[in-house]
Amino acid sequence: MPEINGARLIADLRRLAEFGKYKTGVHRPTYTTEDMAARRWLMDRMAEAGLEPAIDGIGTVLGRTKSRGPRLLLGSHVETQPYSGWLDGAMGVLYGLEIARAFAADKTTAGLGIEVGAWADEEGHYLSLLGSRSFCGEVTEQQLDATRNAQTGKSLREALAEAGLAGKPRERLDPKRYVGYLEAHVEQGDTLDSGGLKLGIVTGIVGIQTYTLTFHGQQNHAGTTRMAVRKDAGVALVKFSNMIEERFPKVVGPRSVWTTGRITLDPGAPSVIPGKAEMLFQFRDVEPERLMLLERTLEQMVAEANARGPCRVELKLVSRTAPHAMDKGFQDALEAAAERHAPKLHTRLPSAAGHDAQTFARHIPAGMLFVPSIAGVSHHYSEDTSEDDIVLGCQAFADAAAAILKKAA
Amino acid sequence: MPEINGARLIADLRRLAEFGKYKTGVHRPTYTTEDMAARRWLMDRMAEAGLEPAIDGIGTVLGRTKSRGPRLLLGSHVETQPYSGWLDGAMGVLYGLEIARAFAADKTTAGLGIEVGAWADEEGHYLSLLGSRSFCGEVTEQQLDATRNAQTGKSLREALAEAGLAGKPRERLDPKRYVGYLEAHVEQGDTLDSGGLKLGIVTGIVGIQTYTLTFHGQQNHAGTTRMAVRKDAGVALVKFSNMIEERFPKVVGPRSVWTTGRITLDPGAPSVIPGKAEMLFQFRDVEPERLMLLERTLEQMVAEANARGPCRVELKLVSRTAPHAMDKGFQDALEAAAERHAPKLHTRLPSAAGHDAQTFARHIPAGMLFVPSIAGVSHHYSEDTSEDDIVLGCQAFADAAAAILKKAA
Repeated sequence: MPEINGARLIADLRRLAEFGKYKTGVHRPTYTTEDMAARRWLMDRMAEAGLEPAIDGIGTVLGRTKSRGPRLLLGSHVETQPYSGWLDGAMGVLYGLEIARAFAADKTTAGLGIEVGAWADEEGHYLSLLGSRSFCGEVTEQQLDATRNAQTGKSLREALAEAGLAGKPRERLDPKRYVGYLEAHVEQGDTLDSGGLKLGIVTGIVGIQTYTLTFHGQQNHAGTTRMAVRKDAGVALVKFSNMIEERFPKVVGPRSVWTTGRITLDPGAPSVIPGKAEMLFQFRDVEPERLMLLERTLEQMVAEANARGPCRVELKLVSRTAPHAMDKGFQDALEAAAERHAPKLHTRLPSAAGHDAQTFARHIPAGMLFVPSIAGVSHHYSEDTSEDDIVLGCQAFADAAAAILKKAA
Repeated sequence: MPEINGARLIADLRRLAEFGKYKTGVHRPTYTTEDMAARRWLMDRMAEAGLEPAIDGIGTVLGRTKSRGPRLLLGSHVETQPYSGWLDGAMGVLYGLEIARAFAADKTTAGLGIEVGAWADEEGHYLSLLGSRSFCGEVTEQQLDATRNAQTGKSLREALAEAGLAGKPRERLDPKRYVGYLEAHVEQGDTLDSGGLKLGIVTGIVGIQTYTLTFHGQQNHAGTTRMAVRKDAGVALVKFSNMIEERFPKVVGPRSVWTTGRITLDPGAPSVIPGKAEMLFQFRDVEPERLMLLERTLEQMVAEANARGPCRVELKLVSRTAPHAMDKGFQDALEAAAERHAPKLHTRLPSAAGHDAQTFARHIPAGMLFVPSIAGVSHHYSEDTSEDDIVLGCQAFADAAAAILKKAA
């Protein structure tokens, strides 16, 4: 089995974290100067590792192998959330790079192909999972034309031009080229860390349903309008939201999560009864049946609130991503490798966050491996994983990749 | 008793509503071109009525009488809330103008002094009750220096300079000059309209206490953070707000009102558990004891929430205005006039909105009369009162003013 070089892996991770360094983490939004510098640095490392590096018209960095044997595609993303962690995404990409190097150096795997992708903008500064979805042929030129930065409003086309990527072709997946896609990632939750576990074999990636709930009341003077005649949209929202907290625990599964991320009262002044109120509500589960039950529960609550009055409630689906199961054979290979390197210190679990692997799962077999996130912290500069756990995860990941490729050879 | 000219009053009100006309209402924020044009128009009408008009360094228009007998100060404000009603404020000022004309034309009142004030920026585009507070000596030059437009951020000094008011002196109240201050206003609530009543004698102006409640949780990934370990500041806010709706009805008075005008979740993204949540909460009552009870209840709830966890709650008083009682003698005079012009169709009631009269109540006797607001609508362009009710209100107001001045003569 190929042996990865832990010290080299950690050194590369530390070096990559210098691009956009912020406190103990990284601030490296997609297509910024720091992000583009990180991508060029990555291409240099790929070339050194014997891969043929390319950057495409969407900023995805791809390191192709010259090997003609069976090939596995490994990857993740290198841009970060604002003021976020040093590992999220970056670790999965550098696992790929390290494993390509280890495979090339080992006679038993020298003929097996490892290709590495850093899919642009998984974090969705412009469009969630943009790079993997573009690579898999799921994004049209018209969609690119219409896409803007969620924070700044800058158009994607303008950002691509500034990054020197305008006019470059976009790379496309040839499904026949690969046995499948593997991605490693920090867990982002605390299941592994709180359970003293070292590795997580991902069973599937949760489906996410996001809604806006709009409450229509009557705007009025907050002094002169008697309580009895008010139609306060904010009060209606609060009552509804509170009822979610009472009802959802009775119908959710053990790993369901639900979150109200934003509340807006309109007009939002101290002395005005809100005439309109809006909340952004989301739930996640890995089971399609559970998602349907949660959806029915929400719809039922809206119907009840409308029957009760006095404010009309409107439910609108903002986005829906289906849950994606990971390949059973890949799960078995990852579990066998985990058992070899961390006996009994691993578990199968769903991913509650979205990953590029869910895009690939629609086109080729896909699998994912998690390493522990200390205290479950994610999307924050204090995100961390112990170096030992990072190295252990890479070795187990390499073994699983080798086993999968050897089986296909 | 002096007779007011209803047709002239209505014509003046309609003419004044042309400045900044918006649909059936008016958009005339303080110191805008339309507002300044309205002030100049008002000064011309004052001069025609035999008053000596002046505009001061804060935009207040004052029409002084040449009469040396006892004097009453009548007034309100002419600027409006954004896209608001045609009567709010303007009606009280033009009642004053019409009554000054009627008194001058009537031999029985010709020696009694009516002065009229249009106090600048009662609506608080820059500073609530600015004109009346400035007139009563409650606003320093330093405060003026620091004041900015609540919406646009423009400094008050800049706005005054653009309006041609820079360097002009500010008029000041001489308490010995007046028997007291009277203000007429649309009710803004629906007590009169829903009860089929024509006139409201204001017993006092409510005290208003406004707070921010800040909930400190832990920002985290809305997918990967298990429900059991979350510290969701938004959920804590919703539970607290819902508890207000359960607890407050048990301790409020019959005319207490309470309102959550704004809710903010931070960072406000669909996939992030809010680490911080803030609500702007306000209550009003005319009884000091009731305000104290509501404050104690709120403080008790905060203590309980902090004991319960998991999110820490912080309560901060943003502003507190004390309730202001209207002069008992003025109330009696207004009630006698109301009974004469609308027998049994009047009531005593508190004002749940703030008015310039509350400023004057700290310095000289003050009284207020309300006319019905159709359906209680206020601070909206559809605000309205029937012309008959407007004329009736002015005649009753004139009678009360005459009775008060004659008693003082």
